[in-house]
Order: sequence, then C-alpha cells, then structure tokens
Amino acid sequence: MIKEFINSLSTVKETSPVVHNITNYVTVNDVANSLLAIGASPIMSHAEKDFPELMQIIKATKGSLVLNIGTLDDKRVNQMICAGKIANDLEVPIVLDPVGAGATSYRTETALKLLKELKISVIKGNESEIQALVGESNQTRGVDAVETDSNKVDLVIKAAKQYECVVAITGKIDYISDGSLSYKVSSGSKELSKITGSGCMLAGIIGAFLCSDKPILATTFAISLLGLAGELAKENSKGPGSFRYELFDSLANIERDFIERRLQIESLR
Amino acid sequence: MIKEFINSLSTVKETSPVVHNITNYVTVNDVANSLLAIGASPIMSHAEKDFPELMQIIKATKGSLVLNIGTLDDKRVNQMICAGKIANDLEVPIVLDPVGAGATSYRTETALKLLKELKISVIKGNESEIQALVGESNQTRGVDAVETDSNKVDLVIKAAKQYECVVAITGKIDYISDGSLSYKVSSGSKELSKITGSGCMLAGIIGAFLCSDKPILATTFAISLLGLAGELAKENSKGPGSFRYELFDSLANIERDFIERRLQIESLR
Amino acid sequence: MIKEFINSLSTVKETSPVVHNITNYVTVNDVANSLLAIGASPIMSHAEKDFPELMQIIKATKGSLVLNIGTLDDKRVNQMICAGKIANDLEVPIVLDPVGAGATSYRTETALKLLKELKISVIKGNESEIQALVGESNQTRGVDAVETDSNKVDLVIKAAKQYECVVAITGKIDYISDGSLSYKVSSGSKELSKITGSGCMLAGIIGAFLCSDKPILATTFAISLLGLAGELAKENSKGPGSFRYELFDSLANIERDFIERRLQIESLR
Repeated sequence: MIKEFINSLSTVKETSPVVHNITNYVTVNDVANSLLAIGASPIMSHAEKDFPELMQIIKATKGSLVLNIGTLDDKRVNQMICAGKIANDLEVPIVLDPVGAGATSYRTETALKLLKELKISVIKGNESEIQALVGESNQTRGVDAVETDSNKVDLVIKAAKQYECVVAITGKIDYISDGSLSYKVSSGSKELSKITGSGCMLAGIIGAFLCSDKPILATTFAISLLGLAGELAKENSKGPGSFRYELFDSLANIERDFIERRLQIESLR
Repeated sequence: MIKEFINSLSTVKETSPVVHNITNYVTVNDVANSLLAIGASPIMSHAEKDFPELMQIIKATKGSLVLNIGTLDDKRVNQMICAGKIANDLEVPIVLDPVGAGATSYRTETALKLLKELKISVIKGNESEIQALVGESNQTRGVDAVETDSNKVDLVIKAAKQYECVVAITGKIDYISDGSLSYKVSSGSKELSKITGSGCMLAGIIGAFLCSDKPILATTFAISLLGLAGELAKENSKGPGSFRYELFDSLANIERDFIERRLQIESLR
Repeated sequence: MIKEFINSLSTVKETSPVVHNITNYVTVNDVANSLLAIGASPIMSHAEKDFPELMQIIKATKGSLVLNIGTLDDKRVNQMICAGKIANDLEVPIVLDPVGAGATSYRTETALKLLKELKISVIKGNESEIQALVGESNQTRGVDAVETDSNKVDLVIKAAKQYECVVAITGKIDYISDGSLSYKVSSGSKELSKITGSGCMLAGIIGAFLCSDKPILATTFAISLLGLAGELAKENSKGPGSFRYELFDSLANIERDFIERRLQIESLR
C-alpha cells in the first residue's frame, strides 16, 4: 500500500482540493492549518447564502464538505443540512464527525438526523460515537474516547453496512470499513489525544484525501497520514505544546523514507 | 504548602475532572489545551439541550462549570444561566471569569446578573474587574489589567465576603480569599500577559483543581501552577510564540524539583 | 523610509492602541496574539451594547476598528455596521478586510454594503477581492489569493480613488495607494500563505499602526512589518507549525538591524 499511499498524498498536494468545514469554534483554526499543511485549501463558512457558489468551487476542485458537531445548536445543524443538500445535489462528498454522539441524546439525535437527511460518504468517530449511531449501548464519558473490549471490527462493518458508506473508528488502533473492504491502521502516538483538535483535523484531512482515491482508501490513507505525522512529531517534541507545532511541520514535511519505514495498514478479512 | 500543592495536582491528574466551559471564541482552544495539559478533560458546549446530561457526567467526575464572558451576547448569557442553574441543582461548582467588567456597563451588569442568578464558587478577575463587582470606581482600559495602588488585599476580602465565595485578584501578585482565609501568590512571569488567553486558561485550570481540595486552596494552587508554568516556559522561550507552546509543555511536565524551589504561596493575616 | 518605519513601530509600542476586531472565529486568536506581539491592545466584541463605551476607550488610545468578513452572517454584518457608525461618529478609523469578496456574491455584496454604509479608512485584500470591489471580473478560488497578470498598480489606484481611502492589494508583492501616493512592498515569505490567518493578522496590525502615521504610510509600514517578520520567522523554522510560533516571536522581537537590511518599500509614480 506504500505506493498507493504516496500517490494519494501527491494527488492531494497537486489537486489542492477546497474543503468546506462547518465545524466547531474550539478547533477550527487547527483544522484550517492542518489542511494548509497537506496542500489542501480550507474554507469555513456557515452562511447559507454562501453555499451554492462555494459548492461549485468545491466541486470544481474535487473538494468536499466536512460536518463536525463539536459545538452545535439548532441553527448550526440547519446550516449543515442546507449545505449538505447542495453537496448531495452536486455529488460533492460529505464527511461527518459526530462529536459527542452517545454522550448526550441531543448529539446522538443530531448525528442521526444528519445521516437521515443527507447522503454521507464517510463517518469518522471514536468507538462510543459509532456505537451510538448503530444504537448500541455505550458509556461515553464526555467527548473523549472510551476504549472498551467490544469487537471494533464487527462494529465498523455493521455501521458501514447500516449507513452504506465508509465508517472509521479511531482510537489506539483505527478501523475503517465500507462494509465490504476493511482496514486496520496501527500508526499514531498517544500524544495526539493530549491535544484538542486531532480528531477534528482528521475529519478535515479525510475530506481532502477524498479527491485522491476511492473513499475507503482515501479514509485509510488520511488516518495513516495523521498517525505517521503524530509519530514523527513525537520524536521532536517534549510536551503537548511542542508536539502541536511539530505536528503541523510533520504533516507538511513527512518524507517517503519515514512513510516506507512506518506505514502500518492491514487489510482485514 | 508544597506537599498540599503536589497532592492537589496529582489529584487533578488522577481524577481527570470534566470541566465544562461556556467561554469566548478568542481563547477557547487555549483553554481546552491547557486543561488537557494538566490531565483534565475539557468540554465546550453552549447547547441548552446538552446541559442536563453533560452536568451529570461533570458531577460524576468531580468536574465544574466555567463561565467566561469574554465575547458575550444576550443569548450566550442566557445559556450560561441555564447551565449554571443545573450546576447549582447538582452542586457542581461554578467558576466565573467576568472578563471586561468595569470596561463597559454591559459587561459589569452581565457579571452582576450571573452572580445574582447563580451560586458561584470562585470569581477570578483582575483588579478592575473585581472592583466593578463590588461597586468601586475604576478606570479599566479595555479588558487588560490596570495595576493601581489600591489595597488589593482589602478588595479581595471585601468581594469574598460580599459574594460568599472564593475571589481571586490576578496581576503581578495574585490575591485569593474566601473572606476568612487569604493567600498571596508571587509566582508568574510577565510573558503571561503578552499572550492572549492566560486569564481564560486560569479560569479553566481553577475549574479543574476544584476536584482536589477546598475551593480556597484549589484556587490558590491553580494560580500557582499557571504562574510556575509561566516561569518555566520563560526560561525556554524567546518571544510570545515560543512562550506559548512552552507554556503547554510546562503545564504538562512541571516537576517536583521546580515546584519545591519556586512555589511562593503566602498566608495573609 | 527606514527612520519613519522605526518611528512608526515605536509609536505603536508606546501608544498601545486598543484595536477592536469584529472578525471571524477561525483566526481570531492569531489576530489577538499578533496585536499583543507588537505592543497593541486587542479587544474582540460583537455585542452592540458594548460598542458605545468600547469606542470611547478606543478613541482615547488612538485605536481603531477592524472589520473582517471571514465568517459572516446577516447578524454579524449588522453588528459591524452598528460598530462602524459609532466609530465614524467618533472619527475612529476603520479597516475593512473583505475576505472572500468575489468568491461568492454574498461576500461581495456584504463588502460593498459596508463600504456604502460606513466611511472606511483602509481596505486590505488580495487582488481578487479588490477586483470584486471595483466591479472587475475575477476568478477567485475560494478565499485564497489568485495571482493574475493584471496591472495591480492600476487596480490599487482605481480602488483608492473610487472609495476615497487607502487600499492595499496583498500578494507576493504588495501595493498600497491612497489614490495620490502609491507604494510597493517586496518584503514577505511564501510561508505566510501556508498558515491560516496571516491576512487577518495584517488587517489587525494595520489597525494598530493607524495611531502612528498617515493612513497611507501606516498601512505600508504594517504590511512591511508582517513581511519582515515572515522573513525572519522563515530563517528559524522548518515547517508551518514552527513558522507560526516564530512569526509571533519575530513580530515582538524584530530588531533595527534586520529592518535596515531588509526593508523594501518603493514609492510608485
């Protein structure tokens, strides 16, 4: 998969897809900077009047729409649905990051509403969030990931089949499935969970990679890139502050050598 | 106090309290990252539908609610009151950061309104802000601190008695009182005032420390930690940009040795 | 111009003007930190009830109002107009950053509306944005700059005459005009376009410099400072993450020597 991964990353840099994020105000700056670091072109707008023209620009660059419910209210959710419908009409792919689904019923219901109203291409969440989307019980603790012993492979395949899209469960090990093909990514560093925004950045990066390959591979490669960049950043940092700036440097500068030595994608079943 | 301080910090890391911030959009990312750096678990949500369930999670982790009026409007203030009432019902402590009270009457009135409607555990502000809350005249210049010669010890005790809670006046020297016990903290570095968000981070960190000790000590220790981390960060930085990332590293990594050499808490009266 | 530039920068540091930003939630933290780095005093507020008193504080410090439409909606635009009218009444200068004008008609119309309702002192945008304001056709790609071969000098003079204010067109080379005097600034580094927020920071920095000289020179010096800081930051960084923190260090610490060696301001016509 090394060659395919590198081709995909090169395609992102050459295509510079416009990725439109309707996201939370906590990590929006990190999402923009992570997209710029990999050569993509971020746009943030929640103005319904902007959407029709923006979506044409996005389509022209093979970009995508990323919906993140990290800080939500009814107005923002309606804006997401408005943008999503235009994206669906133009066949612009949508990535959904159901932040905190399972933690509160409002978040679970909002994620389910977006999944009902819109055709989503990729859902990315931690185990608790994906469990909430398929109706399994869970004990989410806030918006942070809770690692449990349940079979994540079964879960990711179940969710992918239920929503007929690519689903990624992130954690120490990441699982990605489209219901038929499934992959496991072991790259990453625990420092990624010591800063806010790594999950939100990942949703944006997935949105960028969608220009480069089939959604299942694009998602797998995006997750791998952030994991590898996290490993590289860890080598050069001494705490969460230095890790964070090193992460942006690593996303921009990661080299073929490092990728060849470290890429850990495993095909499942 | 060294032993108590270290115990308190350890308790924060072990408990990992969920701290719910309804705060401004300027420094919200810094608040989240500072909480993660000390081992706490930040949540940001302004959705009233989220509050009842979130507050149960917060209570279960001995967490708190932090209200910061840095960028306010009537809607946000109502959301703060809604969350605050639920917190009061569940005996979840509330920290209030009355940003800019005294600078405009809207901010002063909003802070007073929150103090009237809610039982607040800790108020943290600069001298101008605390003066505004007790009805003293002041010449605030924007949201920045104005150091004056007034007796800050008298002021902090007066405010603590008036609002029957812990009050902290921050500045070059910090004063903390619950009306009966009072402390003075001399740690810190002027670089903390050269970046935005150090005050907002402090409110969040106080919220995290509330799980670890009585409010008067928790507040004193939180202020000490940020001050010490500022001193440590200064040693390794050469400007406000490097100071900022070093501050997050220092918050995460500060060691017993440094604390023992530098902790400066003085009991007053 | 070296002496004038250094005098102007010193005046900013000594005056510490309060710069009120009604800006987007993507880069607002960067704007605040860049203003603090150069010794100015940032305020962010979108509360109409805050404006009358804030504007008095701003006027007293020779500060300014900066309007940035990066993430807009009708409510925010109305708040901008409200603040702008108060600024106009008090003769507080206004800087307009028409982010994304030309990319969508909503953004173009909003920028034109602000220009119609308010007396603006400085407009700062990339070529596509300024073209949109003078009614020229353009092919903006999102909010990113598109360099074309059109005569930017003609454009900047035309826009300055049409709106009777200072106009700056930013890009690899920056052009500034008040319709009569025109300057060209060649400082800068391409890394400034690899992070989000450099344009927003520039609008804020222009707002700070307005206390120090005539608008045409203040704008030219602000653009030069960010360009020089970018050059200095580049020397010490290895990617967009380290560039970003170095940029804040450089804004705070840039020295006379570096300025004397690198300042590149050229008077046109």
